[in-house]
Amino acid sequence: MFESAELGHKVDKETFSAEAPKLRELLLDAQFDLAQAPRFPVILLIGGVDGAGKSETVNLLNSWMDPRHIETHGLEPPTDEERERPHMFRWWRQLPPKGKIGIFNGSWYSFPILQRAHGDTKDAQLDQSISRIQRFERMLLDEGALLLKFWMHLSKDVQKKRLKKLEADPLTRWRVTEQDWEHFAMYDKFRKICEKTLTATSTADAPWTVVEATDFRYQALTVGQFIHDALRRRLDGAANQPRLLAPPLPSRLDSVNVFQTLDLTQRMEKADYNVELERLQGRLNLLTRSKSFKKRSVVLAFEGSDAAGKGGAIRRVTGALDARIYRVIPIAAPTDEEKAQPYLWRFWRRLPRDGRFSIFDRTWYGRVLVERVEGYCAEVDWMRAYGEINDFEEQLHRNGTILCKFWLTVSPEEQLRRFEARRDTAYKRFKITDDDWRNREKWDAYQQAVCDMVDRTSPGHAPWTLVESEDKNFGRIKVLKTIVERMEADL
Amino acid sequence: MFESAELGHKVDKETFSAEAPKLRELLLDAQFDLAQAPRFPVILLIGGVDGAGKSETVNLLNSWMDPRHIETHGLEPPTDEERERPHMFRWWRQLPPKGKIGIFNGSWYSFPILQRAHGDTKDAQLDQSISRIQRFERMLLDEGALLLKFWMHLSKDVQKKRLKKLEADPLTRWRVTEQDWEHFAMYDKFRKICEKTLTATSTADAPWTVVEATDFRYQALTVGQFIHDALRRRLDGAANQPRLLAPPLPSRLDSVNVFQTLDLTQRMEKADYNVELERLQGRLNLLTRSKSFKKRSVVLAFEGSDAAGKGGAIRRVTGALDARIYRVIPIAAPTDEEKAQPYLWRFWRRLPRDGRFSIFDRTWYGRVLVERVEGYCAEVDWMRAYGEINDFEEQLHRNGTILCKFWLTVSPEEQLRRFEARRDTAYKRFKITDDDWRNREKWDAYQQAVCDMVDRTSPGHAPWTLVESEDKNFGRIKVLKTIVERMEADL
Repeated sequence: MFESAELGHKVDKETFSAEAPKLRELLLDAQFDLAQAPRFPVILLIGGVDGAGKSETVNLLNSWMDPRHIETHGLEPPTDEERERPHMFRWWRQLPPKGKIGIFNGSWYSFPILQRAHGDTKDAQLDQSISRIQRFERMLLDEGALLLKFWMHLSKDVQKKRLKKLEADPLTRWRVTEQDWEHFAMYDKFRKICEKTLTATSTADAPWTVVEATDFRYQALTVGQFIHDALRRRLDGAANQPRLLAPPLPSRLDSVNVFQTLDLTQRMEKADYNVELERLQGRLNLLTRSKSFKKRSVVLAFEGSDAAGKGGAIRRVTGALDARIYRVIPIAAPTDEEKAQPYLWRFWRRLPRDGRFSIFDRTWYGRVLVERVEGYCAEVDWMRAYGEINDFEEQLHRNGTILCKFWLTVSPEEQLRRFEARRDTAYKRFKITDDDWRNREKWDAYQQAVCDMVDRTSPGHAPWTLVESEDKNFGRIKVLKTIVERMEADL
Repeated sequence: MFESAELGHKVDKETFSAEAPKLRELLLDAQFDLAQAPRFPVILLIGGVDGAGKSETVNLLNSWMDPRHIETHGLEPPTDEERERPHMFRWWRQLPPKGKIGIFNGSWYSFPILQRAHGDTKDAQLDQSISRIQRFERMLLDEGALLLKFWMHLSKDVQKKRLKKLEADPLTRWRVTEQDWEHFAMYDKFRKICEKTLTATSTADAPWTVVEATDFRYQALTVGQFIHDALRRRLDGAANQPRLLAPPLPSRLDSVNVFQTLDLTQRMEKADYNVELERLQGRLNLLTRSKSFKKRSVVLAFEGSDAAGKGGAIRRVTGALDARIYRVIPIAAPTDEEKAQPYLWRFWRRLPRDGRFSIFDRTWYGRVLVERVEGYCAEVDWMRAYGEINDFEEQLHRNGTILCKFWLTVSPEEQLRRFEARRDTAYKRFKITDDDWRNREKWDAYQQAVCDMVDRTSPGHAPWTLVESEDKNFGRIKVLKTIVERMEADL
């Protein structure tokens, strides 16, 4: 992998002085086109060994280009707001929006590689990290990001000389830390781990570019030209590149589906309901005040047919909670800041801190429900959403976040009764819109989408709970009971 | 102040049961109208003594209303991301957008009152806090927020009984902490401080409503009805209420202004420039690596005529910095999330953490420059901006953030030369737009606006630096020198 980067590549001063201004002009031009009509974000990863001129390259890129449209991120220790969310939260919040360039000097590769090198993890865990990274980058690429990954390489000899030279100069001595020498002692080990990681994550549309870092002029021109070429090619390419179509979902030969296993006639009498409600709300409240909850968080995802009773169920949950520890997040049209980011970004930004609930009234599943049925997004995009959503939820799980997902079901007949009642009740009028009436006409298509969703996104740690909501009392108790039992099991 | 809230107000069970459902319907209706056409945010402050049912009231409001459009905030310890910004940062980031209700159970009043009660501060500091709060709330009101402030009051006797009763019940015992009893011991002192604070901050359009908390039914209905009445009155009021006009700025009797004190013929030769530039960039780089900078931050504000050289000056600054520690923020049209917030919100959200630079390419002064001259906002709005900006910058100062503000000046003749050069240079074409040509025609109006701005927003801790940029080299060195000298003096 690193062979071509140990040949002593060099660019002389004259060539550099002649080429750099031309390159700068081209880069500014491409950056201008990118910012003028923001179609995609550019994500640059800069990795490599210590002393290989990573910061210098990043600084030079900033000076060549327009720094107003670049955001550079270093490898800082996570803040407490980041530590309480899944590991990738810090990277999600740093993703550049469309039209901007994000430079990551140190990235999602850094910790998995360093932890393995220090022996804090084993090969199996590194493999897991690699496969998570593959899926994350797949998502970025599918969302349209231009992802360029550079690895700055120094041979062992050259690295040693480089560190010694930096140390000898009083002006640069501060840059060589003890950690650098510790890392140097692990050069061979480090190299092996990097080689494995880079090989596994070099895909056709986001390969690693290994750059020899012996000569800074060579390194800078190589990186700059590569960025320009990739950016220009993408800018000049067709707006909608043909993309592979996902294989279609199997067609249904009969009308048997998971909903038919539900018994919608189940009811709960008012008196029993009142007793059960108070008991479950009491247990839930106690759970939120337990010591172990201070280090955990809860995400509740509510989906369901229109008028199936999401709002009512949510209020029975929040009724048990102190208002300061929850946030109900109604999912409507994304804001323009959200539209400039990958689909899941707006859910990542709403994840709860420890000791908190985020309650989503409609969720990330909109992609495979309304967006699929109404044709708001291409088949290939909602097809990949199943996998992206599973990744997202697996990260919540690994973070210790308790996730409960509810699909509230009513029969079409009951839905109609509720629509009519809402239309006729003044203070409920906000609950019924023309869209609701329209969606009703697509009942079968929605049912099909829900079945596919439940089939594809019910891993053991994030199962769907189908809630029979024909009788509101029965549905609400089932929701509360599910949450309480999951929390009692997990805390 | 608290007399009317010690009379033993009560509402019997029957009245409550009859009134609550009606009130709930009215509240939902008002909330619906608010969310449908978001014109203003609603900010509810809930203050008062311990045990006065603050959380119970907030929880009840959440259960009465639609929790999807409410965000409730408690008094959490600040996160590290908040601790590194000015004190009010945490409140700014929690402000509800237009169309939503933000409930603050504990607010910007809590710390000033508690600190004074504990003797950590003196009267003078409490007075300072009060006057800062007055200005902050004035801004919120002027920005259109509906601000409702409730103070839950218990007489000393009743509070004692309340705490004892809570303590006696095993189910509620957890809610009485040692801190509550400590606070109780300070009842009289606390009451005096609160009385003073509340009196000073009860303004005509945001008075405190003191609510007797002896009887929860009375308390809840009072608060709920007040919220409904205020919300409904505001919703049904004219969209554009007549507002007081600010007195006009004094008209200019002659054409003498601060710009005439500038000598635009000042130049710096290329050779001197190169030496100076390297020397100053070196000093700046060293400063950012000093230990004392780790606990400080820098905000640079760049304003100036079009083509005066803001971008070039910024690049000479960033050229001295590691790309990971700065962010250049170009100010263009606000996003829709920003438009739903007070004017300064989008600058607050970009404030740097410790050890970082935020470099604004155009700034919060847009309000009193382009928005004033182009008539994008009403006179009364840009007139109040001077005061709001001074408050904002004073908060940066108190936080230890080093703020440098630059106005870059060129003559109209030099501007024309640069416009023409830009138009004719391929890779600079992005720097010239039709707007630039149009703005040129309003040269005098802009000059006038700049003079008023400099007159009104140059306190000792945040002076404007007028930069003669007719010669770019001279201007860039002056910018760098100003930053370096300010940092050397402050660190």
